[in-house]
Amino acid sequence: MFLRIDHVGIACHDLEEKIAFYESTFGLTVVSREVNEEQGVKEAMLHVAEGEGGASYVQLLEPLSPETAVGKFLAKRGEGVHHIGYGVADVTRALQEIAGKGVRLIDSRPRHGSMGAAIAFLHPKDVGGVLTELVEAPRRSS
Amino acid sequence: MFLRIDHVGIACHDLEEKIAFYESTFGLTVVSREVNEEQGVKEAMLHVAEGEGGASYVQLLEPLSPETAVGKFLAKRGEGVHHIGYGVADVTRALQEIAGKGVRLIDSRPRHGSMGAAIAFLHPKDVGGVLTELVEAPRRSS
Repeated sequence: MFLRIDHVGIACHDLEEKIAFYESTFGLTVVSREVNEEQGVKEAMLHVAEGEGGASYVQLLEPLSPETAVGKFLAKRGEGVHHIGYGVADVTRALQEIAGKGVRLIDSRPRHGSMGAAIAFLHPKDVGGVLTELVEAPRRSS
Repeated sequence: MFLRIDHVGIACHDLEEKIAFYESTFGLTVVSREVNEEQGVKEAMLHVAEGEGGASYVQLLEPLSPETAVGKFLAKRGEGVHHIGYGVADVTRALQEIAGKGVRLIDSRPRHGSMGAAIAFLHPKDVGGVLTELVEAPRRSS
């Protein structure tokens, strides 16, 4: 079902400062910056590698306010890994299959993710404490 | 510097139970099981994908005792993402380069990791709360 580790989602207080750190320390490159009002974050995708199942990224997330999910995460846990995103071919189908195994879904239907992807989150309590995201990348224009 | 997201390291209470979950729910396959006395864990590597820079895995970690690093992590935070491992071509060289940027190292020299890799950890306080591992995979025999 999983095609790749699509991204590691990392919560931080200062997006620009953390981008500069990942660029200068590890040589990663920002390929996308977005504000996602629905999820309450501004974010950047930093490209790590290409694979048979698509690209992998570090996703840096800064909350738009303390009341957002990522804002509450930072207040409770501090900066660190917020979630893991795995690539799938068809997020709707993957959700059905996973729900059929008894895993609770945060999103029963896909919503808008980074760089045009269709995404959905699974409930961390049913995935061993890991907030797990499914990512269906947009079809590349040929 | 980073060739791939080598693995997501996930701490759990019951390795066999979590392996069964990842296999049955997400279709991943165990490719290696090891006990690493030095790190105080028994672990399994589940293959996710192949990429231009090598393979990516989910690494499940069960502590050998409550006094180990992963045991203490579980007591404090509960199950969840413990660390992120990134592939590098030369871990000794990467450590020198990263230390030169002012990032503190947990391991100033490489040690033994999963599946014959040479690995080293960076200090999470200098990497935005993320326990970050460098992984130099063993050369494949041709």
